[in-house]
Amino acid sequence: MEAMVAAAEAAADLAGAVIRPLFRSPLLVEAKGDASPVTEADRAAERAIRDHLARHHPEHGVIGEEYGAERPEAEWVWVLDPIDGTRAFITGRPMFGTLIGLFHRGRPVLGLIDQPATGERWLGVEGRRTAFRGPLGGQVGCRPCPGVGAAELSCTSPDIFPAGQDAGFQALRRAARRTTWGGDCYAYGLVALGLVDIVVEDTMKPWDWGALVPVVEGAGGRVTDHAGRALTLDSAGDVLAVGDPALLPACVALLSVPAAG
Amino acid sequence: MEAMVAAAEAAADLAGAVIRPLFRSPLLVEAKGDASPVTEADRAAERAIRDHLARHHPEHGVIGEEYGAERPEAEWVWVLDPIDGTRAFITGRPMFGTLIGLFHRGRPVLGLIDQPATGERWLGVEGRRTAFRGPLGGQVGCRPCPGVGAAELSCTSPDIFPAGQDAGFQALRRAARRTTWGGDCYAYGLVALGLVDIVVEDTMKPWDWGALVPVVEGAGGRVTDHAGRALTLDSAGDVLAVGDPALLPACVALLSVPAAG
Repeated sequence: MEAMVAAAEAAADLAGAVIRPLFRSPLLVEAKGDASPVTEADRAAERAIRDHLARHHPEHGVIGEEYGAERPEAEWVWVLDPIDGTRAFITGRPMFGTLIGLFHRGRPVLGLIDQPATGERWLGVEGRRTAFRGPLGGQVGCRPCPGVGAAELSCTSPDIFPAGQDAGFQALRRAARRTTWGGDCYAYGLVALGLVDIVVEDTMKPWDWGALVPVVEGAGGRVTDHAGRALTLDSAGDVLAVGDPALLPACVALLSVPAAG
Repeated sequence: MEAMVAAAEAAADLAGAVIRPLFRSPLLVEAKGDASPVTEADRAAERAIRDHLARHHPEHGVIGEEYGAERPEAEWVWVLDPIDGTRAFITGRPMFGTLIGLFHRGRPVLGLIDQPATGERWLGVEGRRTAFRGPLGGQVGCRPCPGVGAAELSCTSPDIFPAGQDAGFQALRRAARRTTWGGDCYAYGLVALGLVDIVVEDTMKPWDWGALVPVVEGAGGRVTDHAGRALTLDSAGDVLAVGDPALLPACVALLSVPAAG
């Protein structure tokens, strides 16, 4: 596992070096959020990560947002999202991140969340305590939460739910103490620091959530689908993260509220 | 005006020194978002700002979120929000900010947006080009935008609109290219950097928007109410910022869409 941790760290360094100069660049400003320069950054970063992994672990599979799947049936499979939080990146918010996850026989066992703009990095490895470093402070450790009514809920966008399928989310949102919007992968990092209690999202791909599971779970939390089941490469994309595992049954119950009408 | 700029800069430094140690502090984590430690940070920072202003401009008025109004009828009135983006602060997001604005006879003439966590600062002074500094890059200057359909829209939260009064916002949101959530004062700073085109919010107080007007307008944009009128201390709290002033009529037309039923 040490070789894989080293590969993930080095690959994230390479991706950050590609991404950082493009953040808030005049190129991006002039393009007015047009997909092309962002896609270019995304692709160049993914190529940098893939090249590094191919050199060090040529037998491993890779699934990335930009370049699809290679050897997805391998024992070890990397999942890559070079710029998670494209909207944040495009609009100059520093909270986008680079996600590098590793699955072993379908189970996420290593996750790295790197924030090229803020200089923060979370590393989660199955069976170990999550590690975190960065200039903004914070201590690893999910916090206890006495109930949903005391919980800080986070969600990237109300648009993340398929049309007509947000009744459960709205029920959970009404029950929670407060909802904060935006954040993408950063919100899961904040769960691992004991600053956010619940994150609920949907329509996520394995490269969106693969890296998050070891980070949150290595800090004492849980990441499941909206029914409380472990996520697999075949999961539908509905994701629920809780800092305090005792919150899970109540969250699952609220998320199962059927749509009105 | 130089003395007032210096006072605002020094006051923001003092507030940042109070706020920074509390960001992501164990005190805050343990309190689980309970209002008290945040209120304490807010109050201590506002006291630091008020003390500094009272020493340097004892004749000026001050209106602050935590300690109310002193001499609000004075020729010069400061408006203070020591922690704009309380939810962001509570949940460990670095995008909260300290806002210091100055009104002259009811018109916002100076505005400072300071981000204690990221180290960024915007300074706007009526009749001058906005100044910006910070470690994350970016150039001052709102960008042209050919129409609402090409615009990056930003809003802190869908909950910011009074119940049943978001029909206009929803119309604008549907018309815009994309919506990014979260951000508080930071979103207005991004308008001044040409990275966001439109910000729409509501239920804002003068200390929420007073500092933002000179920052955005000194970068080429406009800040008005939802009807396109200049904001005054008596405005109702609906705020619209556009980077390209040519967007204003279309935004106002969309925001005037009446509620269904």
